[in-house]
Amino acid sequence: DFALIAQAASLHSRIPFLHFFDGFRTSHEVGKVELLDENVLKEMITDDLVSAHRSRAMTPDRPILRGTSQNPDVYFQGRESVNKYYEALPAILQEQMDLFASLTGRQYNLFDYIGHAEAERVVVLMGSGAEAAHEYCEHISRQGEKVGVIKVRLSLPFDKEAFAKALPKSVKSIAVLDRTKESGSQGEPLYHDVLTALYELDCEAKLPFNMPIVTAGRYGLSSKEFTPAMIKGIFDELAKETPKNHFTVGINDDVTNTSIEYDKTFLLKDEDTFEAMFFGLGSDGTVGANKNSIKIIGQETDNYAQGYFVYDSKKSGSMTTSHLRFGPRPIHSTYLIQKADFVACHQNVFMEKFDILSNIKEGGTFLLNTPFAKDEVFARLPVDVQKQIIDKKLKFYAIDGYSVAKKSGMGSRINTIMQTCFFAISGILERDEAIEKIKTSIQKTYGHKSEQIVAMNFQAVENTLENLFEVDVPDSTQGNAQMQPIIKGKYGEFVENVTKKIIENRGDELPVSAMPDDGTWPTGTTEYEKRNIAQEVPVWDSDVCIQCNKCVMVCPHSVIRSKVVKESELVDAPKAFSFVKAKGFEDDDRFMISVAVEDCTGCALCVEVCPAKNKSQTNLKAINMAPQLPLREEGAEHWEYFLNLPQMDRSSLDHSKVKDSQFLEPLFEFSGACPGCGETPYVKL
Amino acid sequence: DFALIAQAASLHSRIPFLHFFDGFRTSHEVGKVELLDENVLKEMITDDLVSAHRSRAMTPDRPILRGTSQNPDVYFQGRESVNKYYEALPAILQEQMDLFASLTGRQYNLFDYIGHAEAERVVVLMGSGAEAAHEYCEHISRQGEKVGVIKVRLSLPFDKEAFAKALPKSVKSIAVLDRTKESGSQGEPLYHDVLTALYELDCEAKLPFNMPIVTAGRYGLSSKEFTPAMIKGIFDELAKETPKNHFTVGINDDVTNTSIEYDKTFLLKDEDTFEAMFFGLGSDGTVGANKNSIKIIGQETDNYAQGYFVYDSKKSGSMTTSHLRFGPRPIHSTYLIQKADFVACHQNVFMEKFDILSNIKEGGTFLLNTPFAKDEVFARLPVDVQKQIIDKKLKFYAIDGYSVAKKSGMGSRINTIMQTCFFAISGILERDEAIEKIKTSIQKTYGHKSEQIVAMNFQAVENTLENLFEVDVPDSTQGNAQMQPIIKGKYGEFVENVTKKIIENRGDELPVSAMPDDGTWPTGTTEYEKRNIAQEVPVWDSDVCIQCNKCVMVCPHSVIRSKVVKESELVDAPKAFSFVKAKGFEDDDRFMISVAVEDCTGCALCVEVCPAKNKSQTNLKAINMAPQLPLREEGAEHWEYFLNLPQMDRSSLDHSKVKDSQFLEPLFEFSGACPGCGETPYVKL
Repeated sequence: DFALIAQAASLHSRIPFLHFFDGFRTSHEVGKVELLDENVLKEMITDDLVSAHRSRAMTPDRPILRGTSQNPDVYFQGRESVNKYYEALPAILQEQMDLFASLTGRQYNLFDYIGHAEAERVVVLMGSGAEAAHEYCEHISRQGEKVGVIKVRLSLPFDKEAFAKALPKSVKSIAVLDRTKESGSQGEPLYHDVLTALYELDCEAKLPFNMPIVTAGRYGLSSKEFTPAMIKGIFDELAKETPKNHFTVGINDDVTNTSIEYDKTFLLKDEDTFEAMFFGLGSDGTVGANKNSIKIIGQETDNYAQGYFVYDSKKSGSMTTSHLRFGPRPIHSTYLIQKADFVACHQNVFMEKFDILSNIKEGGTFLLNTPFAKDEVFARLPVDVQKQIIDKKLKFYAIDGYSVAKKSGMGSRINTIMQTCFFAISGILERDEAIEKIKTSIQKTYGHKSEQIVAMNFQAVENTLENLFEVDVPDSTQGNAQMQPIIKGKYGEFVENVTKKIIENRGDELPVSAMPDDGTWPTGTTEYEKRNIAQEVPVWDSDVCIQCNKCVMVCPHSVIRSKVVKESELVDAPKAFSFVKAKGFEDDDRFMISVAVEDCTGCALCVEVCPAKNKSQTNLKAINMAPQLPLREEGAEHWEYFLNLPQMDRSSLDHSKVKDSQFLEPLFEFSGACPGCGETPYVKL
Repeated sequence: DFALIAQAASLHSRIPFLHFFDGFRTSHEVGKVELLDENVLKEMITDDLVSAHRSRAMTPDRPILRGTSQNPDVYFQGRESVNKYYEALPAILQEQMDLFASLTGRQYNLFDYIGHAEAERVVVLMGSGAEAAHEYCEHISRQGEKVGVIKVRLSLPFDKEAFAKALPKSVKSIAVLDRTKESGSQGEPLYHDVLTALYELDCEAKLPFNMPIVTAGRYGLSSKEFTPAMIKGIFDELAKETPKNHFTVGINDDVTNTSIEYDKTFLLKDEDTFEAMFFGLGSDGTVGANKNSIKIIGQETDNYAQGYFVYDSKKSGSMTTSHLRFGPRPIHSTYLIQKADFVACHQNVFMEKFDILSNIKEGGTFLLNTPFAKDEVFARLPVDVQKQIIDKKLKFYAIDGYSVAKKSGMGSRINTIMQTCFFAISGILERDEAIEKIKTSIQKTYGHKSEQIVAMNFQAVENTLENLFEVDVPDSTQGNAQMQPIIKGKYGEFVENVTKKIIENRGDELPVSAMPDDGTWPTGTTEYEKRNIAQEVPVWDSDVCIQCNKCVMVCPHSVIRSKVVKESELVDAPKAFSFVKAKGFEDDDRFMISVAVEDCTGCALCVEVCPAKNKSQTNLKAINMAPQLPLREEGAEHWEYFLNLPQMDRSSLDHSKVKDSQFLEPLFEFSGACPGCGETPYVKL
């Protein structure tokens, strides 16, 4: 809508528009939209406007000069010559908004007010956060609370008269919210604008109410969540006799005490909206399946749909969380789901690492992709998770998605399977209808590729329905399975208090004092985060190895390393720890290669580069990939032992030779990937 | 002073400083300064501070990580962790200012107030314009006017308490002046800051006076002049019951009427300051000589000195104006001289083109470098200039500087000669003492090169004193010499009303309505500005020419061109207009080369490239340089005739051949140089 309105207003006003949305929340939200009809575009961008615009273009056929260098004598006059265009702009924009409304029924204004007609407390903001405030004020003002929100549609030029007109005359206090911070400034831009507008109108005796109290607040920096609970906190603050100015909301500022308190448990009740969360592994198809589900529900039903997807910055091999909402009314909730009707965990390993069920409602439905059988699955969960399932009275469904996928000939692709489960048990669509829609969607997506793929997916749907089962939840916890630590090793206080919390997805809880104020962080902390993301890891075959060190050189993450040590150092080596006589060293020197199986990403570049050949089994080399899980425990023990062996003397090594250089201690290790894509340069094997 | 204070405060506060001055006025002013003693630097930048700073540097010896990529969970907290540094900054800066004062006696404050102790009207501004306001308020408040100025030393963070404390309690109205414009904004940055500061203090009941009227103004964009007359205009406006807000000053805004009126003739009277203006030609040594004069007066006397130099953007060959002030007190006049005690014109040709004497005082002294003898010089001036000399009762001195330079063996270097004249007649130093100082300076400048150059300059000084003469000013004008038009040709209304005024140095008088609001200017207007800057221009020798067109190709300004036309077209050719039989064309075709002598810059690249040889005079080619003045009139007539001959048919020419391509009409001509240096790529011949 605004792209069209801004373009039309720009052509009329001859002022360029910066028409923006504010980051990830808007760009990465999937929702149900009404497309603009081409006739609406033609009504607003008329041929006359386009011709006039083109006639102003620079062309050698009608040569003119633009952008001359101007000296002190005339530059000032030139700058003031454009005032009239800016003065005319607000009215032109409103005109275009009105024309747009007449064509589409959707009315916008320079400043849109939502809330109680006699509101005393008003927040002013723009961008995606305004939707959450809209939702809150609409909801709460219906209950009689005198609150409201101004959504700023045009921030520059700021039309002070239009602003004052949009405010209810009953206004007593205003919080101006900026989603930005200017260090050292008295306040952020929108605050300055609102203050200046009100002051000037007051001076000109044009203010239709008494000068209200105006405060400034910052929220949601870097797309941090902005929730109804925070909005309620702001209104509560505004209700005080001396509301805090220059506050922050959504964080705990225990350093300069800018933050206001708010009740984190506060939720807007919306019985009509169905909310679902899905935990998947980057690249396991969860996000794609959810986008497809939104499409089905958005297109095939009257429901509005919203999807938002949270990734961390580690790309492949890390957790993705999908937040889906469906409901009969447009969805203004521009924040993550806080109480889900439905939670699906597509990777069993997450259950031991993350608090997956913390956001599920009492009585909600929980779906788990698990390798365990019906009678085993509950007891295999950490007891803390079992307790949540019991206490929250969850309906618990499970399926062995990977085995269904394999059986259906789909390798490890579980997307169709988990999507089928969702529709089968969520009740969001009638079950048979939903299955029908999934099949139609499969036909659409794969039909042009091959009928075989379609048939395979159809079969997967059938197999899913056969294999999905409800888990009987016992009255008490079973066995003694525990949550696994998210990091390991001998880490210091900072890693314990800060880095670990971030890795646990609890960074939002960190107070301001936890953050180093000069941005200094310790180095080399990736060693504590045992990601265990490789399905397969390299295994060294000491008999075949020619000791060239090329595998060590090629590893982008320093996960595979070699050393040469005296045999005497190895007397206490673990039994299965391999080493051989070191070629080109002294008689009592031993060579070994060790792999950090918990840090390896499984890219297999080491295997690719290995020049050695196993003479008895020609498909093998001196390094070969093997499933990680059975190797994990022993591998970790060997790696620890290897690290503690003496480092080789730098001065004894010839740094210009590949082999020698790879005995040096690596100073970068275990990249977590990003920023700027530090991902392993994967090769397809 | 501020470089040191800012550096010290930065080390103490750990906040980077942007310590700036505002453009040409400050960077290009030459003045008398007190150098800071090294001990002062050491007192303020202690070894402890330096060590602490260095210990925070990044080094592989103590590896740390800075500038991590932060996600929504913690970014906000990190940004707020720095608040305490910004909160502490103003006090730290003031501390350093106080320390600086204790070491040097020069006290600065976050906000410095100058003016009446009970001022009711106050202007607030920063940068070089604040000096002019300082001068005005000091002067006028001494006469009892209740006016004052706040000079902002620290604009961000803006310390609202310090600001309010600096204001006199009697303040009733404030004009906040910004030397910038933000199109579409409600006001410029300093205005927003002042309003916000006053509003917040008022809310907090911390304002030590009633909320004053606050207006915003823009001035001096792109280094436009900011004069006492304009400052008086602002104070006059503030005295009104409803002073204009968002005003401009210094221009005539006849479009959106933002400008306030002011009395352009208003001047601060300062009997003690001697003011001198010098008009020279770019690269004739005038500016250098004036800088030297400032050095002599600044170093050898108790006087303060100030020099400011105005160039246009045409580089070589255009006018430079030097503005020099000398006086017993520090000079705050950050604007051009408006009433000069002394005016020198170092180029006689300027007298016919520009109103050189418009800024000279009644009874002032005028010095002219002229080729004319004592009995001729007055009558040779345009009568309008003669009238000014008579009416203003000027003392008029003259010298034939170029002939003295030649006679003294200095070629065309007139700098020492004109400087000697200035000291001989201005009375700023005692004559003999001044001559002595000039000689000392010559010794310093040239002594290390050769004694011969020193002797030559000494001789030039002696010759100058012998040849400088006072012109007897008659009671009435003599003869009928007229000012010469500054542009020529058939130009349109825009060039008449806008371009011409700019070339005449009257661009400041142009109202806002004269400026094209979308920046569109006509092209090809350089043809009207006959600069006549070449001392020598090329002359075509049709007998020697081989008609290769290389001279045409090489000319960077399209000043030399060729055509082939039928002989029949040439029946009305001027008598001396040359053409020859065109080689490689039909029998009745004629070839000719013509030169725009008034547009040529004299670079002689055409001579350099000419491959033809004059067999009788081996030092000549088919193009040879000759003095421009004798050729000017006929050359202009020939050029006009040449342009009106038929253009050759594009389709008949082979564009890939050098010769043919140069018969095409050139679409760029007569560059005025700049922006980005469009100067001729000169070669030394």
